Amino acid sequence: MVKAVTARAPLPRLSDAIAQLRNLLGDRISTSTAVCAQHSTGVFLSANDPPDAVAFAQSTAEVVEIVKICAAHAIPIIPFGTGTSVEGHIAAPMGGLSLDVSRMDRVLQVNTEDLDVVVEPGVTRKALNSHIRDTGLFFPIDPGADASLGGMAATRASGTNAVRYGTMRENVLALQVVTADGGVIRTGGRARKSSAGYDLTRVFVGSEGTLGIITEVTLRLYGIPEKTAAAVCSFKTIEGAVDTVISTIQAGVPIARIELLDDCQIDILNKQAKFDFPVLDTLFMEFHGTAAGVQEQAEMVQALASDNGGGNFTWTTQAEERTKLWQARHDATWVDKQAYPGWDVFATDVCVPISRLAGVVTSSKRDAADSGLIAPIVGHVGDGNFHMLVMVKPDDPAYLARVHAFNDRLIGRALAAGGTCTGEHGIGLGKIKHLYAEHGDSVHVMQAIKRALDPQNIMNPGKIFAPAGK
Amino acid sequence: MVKAVTARAPLPRLSDAIAQLRNLLGDRISTSTAVCAQHSTGVFLSANDPPDAVAFAQSTAEVVEIVKICAAHAIPIIPFGTGTSVEGHIAAPMGGLSLDVSRMDRVLQVNTEDLDVVVEPGVTRKALNSHIRDTGLFFPIDPGADASLGGMAATRASGTNAVRYGTMRENVLALQVVTADGGVIRTGGRARKSSAGYDLTRVFVGSEGTLGIITEVTLRLYGIPEKTAAAVCSFKTIEGAVDTVISTIQAGVPIARIELLDDCQIDILNKQAKFDFPVLDTLFMEFHGTAAGVQEQAEMVQALASDNGGGNFTWTTQAEERTKLWQARHDATWVDKQAYPGWDVFATDVCVPISRLAGVVTSSKRDAADSGLIAPIVGHVGDGNFHMLVMVKPDDPAYLARVHAFNDRLIGRALAAGGTCTGEHGIGLGKIKHLYAEHGDSVHVMQAIKRALDPQNIMNPGKIFAPAGK
Repeated sequence: MVKAVTARAPLPRLSDAIAQLRNLLGDRISTSTAVCAQHSTGVFLSANDPPDAVAFAQSTAEVVEIVKICAAHAIPIIPFGTGTSVEGHIAAPMGGLSLDVSRMDRVLQVNTEDLDVVVEPGVTRKALNSHIRDTGLFFPIDPGADASLGGMAATRASGTNAVRYGTMRENVLALQVVTADGGVIRTGGRARKSSAGYDLTRVFVGSEGTLGIITEVTLRLYGIPEKTAAAVCSFKTIEGAVDTVISTIQAGVPIARIELLDDCQIDILNKQAKFDFPVLDTLFMEFHGTAAGVQEQAEMVQALASDNGGGNFTWTTQAEERTKLWQARHDATWVDKQAYPGWDVFATDVCVPISRLAGVVTSSKRDAADSGLIAPIVGHVGDGNFHMLVMVKPDDPAYLARVHAFNDRLIGRALAAGGTCTGEHGIGLGKIKHLYAEHGDSVHVMQAIKRALDPQNIMNPGKIFAPAGK
Repeated sequence: MVKAVTARAPLPRLSDAIAQLRNLLGDRISTSTAVCAQHSTGVFLSANDPPDAVAFAQSTAEVVEIVKICAAHAIPIIPFGTGTSVEGHIAAPMGGLSLDVSRMDRVLQVNTEDLDVVVEPGVTRKALNSHIRDTGLFFPIDPGADASLGGMAATRASGTNAVRYGTMRENVLALQVVTADGGVIRTGGRARKSSAGYDLTRVFVGSEGTLGIITEVTLRLYGIPEKTAAAVCSFKTIEGAVDTVISTIQAGVPIARIELLDDCQIDILNKQAKFDFPVLDTLFMEFHGTAAGVQEQAEMVQALASDNGGGNFTWTTQAEERTKLWQARHDATWVDKQAYPGWDVFATDVCVPISRLAGVVTSSKRDAADSGLIAPIVGHVGDGNFHMLVMVKPDDPAYLARVHAFNDRLIGRALAAGGTCTGEHGIGLGKIKHLYAEHGDSVHVMQAIKRALDPQNIMNPGKIFAPAGK
C-alpha cells in the first residue's frame, strides 16, 4: 500500500552470490528487469523496489542451499509465492534475491481421516481444493485472491470464512521452515494440539518472511457441508446490520460467512454488474450444515435481522444463485475499478471489537465524504474487520497523500477502539508506522525475536520494523 | 510428573532480595517451610524442590517491582496460580521466589457484545463462569481442575471441550505480560484477528512462565447453548469407538465433547461410583445447539456409532442426568485413587493424529498389561489426546522406574505416529527429554527466543529446556 523506490548502494558481494546461485540453479535464476519487476509488484498500490535477481526453487534442499549462499554473502532474501500481497511484502528495498517458491507446488500428503494435508508452499488455495475435491473435505480460508498457502501462512491471512473456521493462525498445524542459517526445522507434528514447548508454528505464521522461509505447510481440513445456503438482507442503518451480527454470534448460530457491503458498494455493484439490490447497507451470509440445520440457521438470522430493521431477507440453497451472490461479493474490488477507469484501489484493513464496528464505520464514512474520497466498504463483519476500498488516482501524489492521511485517521479510530491496523493484510512496508502506534510497548520484544532468529538481518529485511534509527 | 530434589548452593544475593521484597510487600512475603512446600507441590506426582520464598502480588505494578528486585539480584521467579500443574512447573530446582498471583483475582472487563473478557491471572475458570453467569455467555475451556486462567494460558491448557471450542491457544485474545527486565507489554488488543507483527500472544501462551509473568488475560467467550444434550455409547472394540469419532468429525457434527473411557476405567467407575455401564470402551459425548440441532446431532452420531458396532446409545437433555454423567468422567482420577488406597496416579498425556489413535491405544494397553501396570484410560478422543492414569506406589522407586519406562515407550509410539509427548500438560521438569525427542531440530530456536527475552535466565529457569551441558 505504498509506492517508494529507495535509492541504495549495490550489495557489495552480489555478483559472487549470483554466480554461485547460477551454478546451483542453472537457468532458474534470472536478473532480467522484467522478471525482477514482476516479482516486486503486489496487487493494488504496492511498493516496487525490485530485487536484484529472482531464484525459482524446486525443493527444500534447494532453499537450504540458496539461503546458505545468501547468508555467506549477506544478500537479503525475499520470499515470493503468487505476488498477491498488498502491503509491499515482496518488494526489495534493500535489494537482494526474490526467492520464488511457486514451483514448489506439490500436495505431499492428504490425510482424510485426520482432516489434514501437507503441502509445499507454492500450492494455491484453489489448487488445494481442486486436488482434494473427491475426498469430501475442503480448506476454507478464502482471502479472495488465489494466493499461495505459504504466503497465506506468512501474512496470517483470513477472509470471508474466518468467522466460522478461523484464520491461518488457527488452521496451520505445523510448518517446515528453512531458518536464516540454512537449517531446516519442523515446528510441529500432525497432532491437533500440543503443549510441547514454545509455539513456533505461531511464531512463523504472520512473520512475513522475516524469520525464515516456509517450505512445507500442514493445514487443517473440514468436511464439505451437506448443505450450503446463501442469504442476503438490507438494513436502513449500519447499526441494524451490526446488531444483527452480534445477536447471531451471541445466539451461537455457526454462521460460515457474514459480510457487509455498504450502500456505496451496493450502488456500484448494481450499476456495474447488473444487480438490483436495494441501495442500503447489506449483509451477505452463508450457512453450512445439514438441510434442517441451514434452514434453522437462516430462519433464526432472519428473525434477528427483522428485530434490527433488516428487510428483503432472501435465502437459497441453489448453487447457481449462491455462486452469483458470492461472485458479486468477491468482485467488489474489480467492479469498483471498472466504475472508475484509470483509477486504482487503496484497501484499508482495520479490525475492531464488533461492538465498536458501527461507530468506526459511520465516522469513517463521514470522514471519507468530508475528504472528498470515494470509499465503498466490504467487510468481514463477523470478525469486526472491514475494508474501505478507497479509489485513488495513482499518478496524483497530492491525492495519494490525502488517502494516506485518511487511512491514518481511520487506523487512529480503530486503535482507540481497541482494534488493530491490519486484520489480515499484514504490515509489510506499508504499515510500519502503524505497527509502532499499535504495539509501541512490545515492538522491542518482536525485534528481539527477529535478532535472535536472523542476526544478520537477511530475511526480508526492512519489513514490519523500521530500519534502525528511523 | 517427576520427583527430584536437586542439591544446590544457596543463591548468593537472596537475603538482600528478600529484604527489599519485604519492604515492598510487608507480610505478603513468606519464607516459611510450609508455605514454600505448598508452593512447589502440584497434583499427582510432582517435583518438590521448594522455592526460597513466596511473594503474594496484588497488582501488575507490584509484579513489576518484584521482577525488578529479582532481576537486580539474579533471583529466579516461578509464577504460581493454583498449583494444579502436573509436570513440576511450580517447583524451584534453582531456588528463588514463587510469585503467587492468586490474589490478582479481579474480572476487569466483561464485554458481552464482543464476547470477550479481561481478567487478572488469578481468576479461576469456575470463578469466571460464576461471575458471567447472568450474561448468557460462558468460557468453555475445562481442564478438569479449577485452574487459574493465567496458569491455563501459561501451559496452553485444554480439556474436554477443545474438540469444539479449541484450546487456550485459540481462546486467548491477548495478554499483558511483565517481561524479564520488569517492562510491561500488551501482546494484542481485543480485535478477533490481527496481522500486525509477530504473534506475541502465542509466544507467551504455553511458555510456562519462562519468558515473563502473565498479569492480564483477554479471553474469548461463547453464548451458552440453548440446549445441551449428553450421550453415552459402548463399543466392543476401540477401533469402533475411534471410527465413530472420525466419522462424526468428517460429517461436520459440531460435537462439544467426545471422551473415551476404556473398559478398565469403566470397571473402576462402576465399582467405586455405583454406575452400571457395560464394561467396554465407552464414549461420553455432549452436544450444544438448538433443541432441534442437538436432537439431529445425537441421532446422526447414534447412526454412525451403530455403523461402527456401538451399542447402548442413550442420550438426554435432562440437566441432572447430564451432570451425573460428566461428574463420572471428571471424577475418574479420584475414583482410581479410591480404588487403590495409598497409591498415586501418574498421568500420561500423548496426543496423536486420530487415525493413529486406536493403534497407539491398543499397543499401549498391551504394553501396560505386559508391564504389570494398572492404567485406566480417559481421553479427549476428538483431539487424539488420551491419558493413561497409571497407578503407582509413590514410595517404591523400582515401581516408579517401571512406570517411567512405560511412559517413555508410550511417548515413543506417539512420536512415531506423528504426535506429541504432551497434548495439554506441558513440559515443565517432567518431559524435558521428551521435548528434545519431539522437537530436536527446533529446540535451539526455542532457546534462542528464551535467551533473547530472558538473557539472565531468571524466568522459571530449568523448565522446558535442559540446563546447559545436560
